[in-house]
Amino acid sequence: MKLVSFIDPNGVETYGTMTVDTVRDAGATLRSKYADLRAVLAAGATAELEGIGAESDVASVTLLPPIPNPDKILCVGLNYMAHIKETGRDKPQYPAIFIRHPSSLVGHGTPLVRPKASKDFDYEGELAIVIGKAGRHISTDDAWDYIAGYTCFNDGSIRDFQAHTSQFWPGKSFESSGSIGPALITSDDVQDVTQSTLTTRVNGNVEQNAGIDDLAFSIPEIIAYASTVIKLLPGDVIATGTPGGVGKFRKPQLYLEPGMSVDVEITGVGTLSNGIVDEV
Amino acid sequence: MKLVSFIDPNGVETYGTMTVDTVRDAGATLRSKYADLRAVLAAGATAELEGIGAESDVASVTLLPPIPNPDKILCVGLNYMAHIKETGRDKPQYPAIFIRHPSSLVGHGTPLVRPKASKDFDYEGELAIVIGKAGRHISTDDAWDYIAGYTCFNDGSIRDFQAHTSQFWPGKSFESSGSIGPALITSDDVQDVTQSTLTTRVNGNVEQNAGIDDLAFSIPEIIAYASTVIKLLPGDVIATGTPGGVGKFRKPQLYLEPGMSVDVEITGVGTLSNGIVDEV
Repeated sequence: MKLVSFIDPNGVETYGTMTVDTVRDAGATLRSKYADLRAVLAAGATAELEGIGAESDVASVTLLPPIPNPDKILCVGLNYMAHIKETGRDKPQYPAIFIRHPSSLVGHGTPLVRPKASKDFDYEGELAIVIGKAGRHISTDDAWDYIAGYTCFNDGSIRDFQAHTSQFWPGKSFESSGSIGPALITSDDVQDVTQSTLTTRVNGNVEQNAGIDDLAFSIPEIIAYASTVIKLLPGDVIATGTPGGVGKFRKPQLYLEPGMSVDVEITGVGTLSNGIVDEV
Repeated sequence: MKLVSFIDPNGVETYGTMTVDTVRDAGATLRSKYADLRAVLAAGATAELEGIGAESDVASVTLLPPIPNPDKILCVGLNYMAHIKETGRDKPQYPAIFIRHPSSLVGHGTPLVRPKASKDFDYEGELAIVIGKAGRHISTDDAWDYIAGYTCFNDGSIRDFQAHTSQFWPGKSFESSGSIGPALITSDDVQDVTQSTLTTRVNGNVEQNAGIDDLAFSIPEIIAYASTVIKLLPGDVIATGTPGGVGKFRKPQLYLEPGMSVDVEITGVGTLSNGIVDEV
């Protein structure tokens, strides 16, 4: 199933399932029981959404991040060897985890915002996993069982702010500077995500292209490491890192400007597309 | 006023005001209107708590972080010259901001948890500010108007995990590894917080002692910088950094072990005390 959160044509925030062209508003029936998709995951109730709700054209709704209100969004930096090399670093011994705030992300189809404070606005296509059940001290053997599903992620980055100090926070936290979606595809509908290919296109031109099997730290290794530190909760998002080809290290550099578009496509998972506007 | 969140003797999570020895349960009356203290701040309704609610001995309740569920907890690293020097760094050009998750913090009187994964458990006494109204692009001139009040903060750190990569996240995110409180003292009850003195005691011995006026980046500068990036919201917590004297750089090193105690005292603000237990 493809699970989505969206604003319906009447402005009501709801959730449901998606086909290619349509969404079904399961939330209209289920919101009294599960306030949002995060609550559906926490209850282990995704099967209840199947075939439920009135169908609308996907163009008539505003897609939100599939989980609009996760407890946490963890991001792994420097997790593909090609990207590690382009930044001039060596392979790290541990995954470099930082966070994003929910307000830094928009859904599929909503423009990313280039801030007033900078023109160094870069894209980073990534695979994101969404946690399906709570766990701490999860072993690599058990890690796959904790995944509800997958989605596409654009870890949009303000490069000059990212380099202000050792901590990435300012470069990764600007309002509406990244995106996630369009849908959370449940793990039972993904055969083997490590066989997927990630492609990022800017204005239709391929700028990033890598197999998910090129991850320096595998998905189970990331889950095991993160859950050593903190309890993972249903709806938590983990973005697994970006491959080589980001705009900062491209020759010539390629930064995002109003009117441009970015697509992050992951085979078997979906395509996340966003335009760019300036902060007003 | 001193605002607190707490679990009452019947196990109900509520909020109210604190004197030296007692708390008043304003939430029993007001929770239907304001679900929690964060909602009280968002409504600009702190005055409604004054003198409201049944009085209990503070020893009969469990104090929580004053704002148990902030949208974000921003922390400034390396913000006192003495601490910058002890880490071997130069004065930074920008405040180094990282975040903590709410689950990494306990309230006054609840033990901090030394994780199974490490014995390098360090203290960091800090002044924290709590945001009172929403704002973006806040100027240094206006910054004080956005502060609801102040509290004490122990930015407890797992030093080996903090040093795994460039990003501090794993060192600052372990469950129940830091603390905040006991109360949020509203800014109208604090004359000039920059004249306060911060003292951290471990087992009663003074390990950190500095004036808040030693901050490398002032409180208005931190607010202005952070709000360039992200919209600050009522209840957001900003921990302003720790002075020199942390356990890692002490000779000999001083790491926290079960049975020890840490007090973070800030004159005019309060004293935050926590014991230490091992993760079970």
